[in-house]
Amino acid sequence: MVDILHKVGIKSSSQNYVYKALTTVDGLSAWWTNNTQGENKVGGVLRFRFGAGGFDMKVLELQTGRHVLWQVVDGPQEWMDTKISFDLRQEGEWTLVLFKHEGWKEPVEFMHHCSTKWGVFLLSLKSLLETGKGGPHPHEIKIDSWE
Amino acid sequence: MVDILHKVGIKSSSQNYVYKALTTVDGLSAWWTNNTQGENKVGGVLRFRFGAGGFDMKVLELQTGRHVLWQVVDGPQEWMDTKISFDLRQEGEWTLVLFKHEGWKEPVEFMHHCSTKWGVFLLSLKSLLETGKGGPHPHEIKIDSWE
Repeated sequence: MVDILHKVGIKSSSQNYVYKALTTVDGLSAWWTNNTQGENKVGGVLRFRFGAGGFDMKVLELQTGRHVLWQVVDGPQEWMDTKISFDLRQEGEWTLVLFKHEGWKEPVEFMHHCSTKWGVFLLSLKSLLETGKGGPHPHEIKIDSWE
Repeated sequence: MVDILHKVGIKSSSQNYVYKALTTVDGLSAWWTNNTQGENKVGGVLRFRFGAGGFDMKVLELQTGRHVLWQVVDGPQEWMDTKISFDLRQEGEWTLVLFKHEGWKEPVEFMHHCSTKWGVFLLSLKSLLETGKGGPHPHEIKIDSWE
């Protein structure tokens, strides 16, 4: 099992402000993909689409202002059953976001791609909350020949 | 043991063009840190500085146009003895760079930070080679409260 890890710090006086961007369809649409639908409640499913493909995430855990945990229930084979978490904490004027995408079976080339891409989208989240403008799909920074 | 993985694709007709940016002091200075010194030959040591701190890398393997492997011989404790590799291959007009920073003992918070930061610097490498302008330290994109 291998994991993708990231960390960003967002200039924000409120973990709840960051949490909202991770737990509402409007928030998620503004930094990850503009084609986001579903229900953000424990047991609900969020559907993220990128062109033809995408990911369905079951919401496993929600702790207001602090923690989000999803499990992939539909998507590319490499993503199936993997888990994605966001843990938030406040340090002065910064809300720190620790990100983990865990449970990959093998460190395949697609995992390299997804790791860099998660970094791009977390910087999109940071930009959204600091400037009001994110870079969700299809407007995200392109990283390689797969797009 | 846990690894940081990334992938970027660079619009370039030549792996050697990308390889040069990974294996010359001028190239490395233009995308990673402008304070880069040392000798790029097998057994040589490259010294990368970021403000007060930094990393010394021993060059372990070089295969022209295809592969670079370094080992950390001085730097933060978490980086000591870890290995960093770049593997290149051509697909049409794209030179694909597979990056690995392997041998971390624990998935500490610093590893989350470094993973995101490596993504930022690999996009700086891509920008350097596609546009002529990279974003090396101290001009890189800031990701959190540590900078």
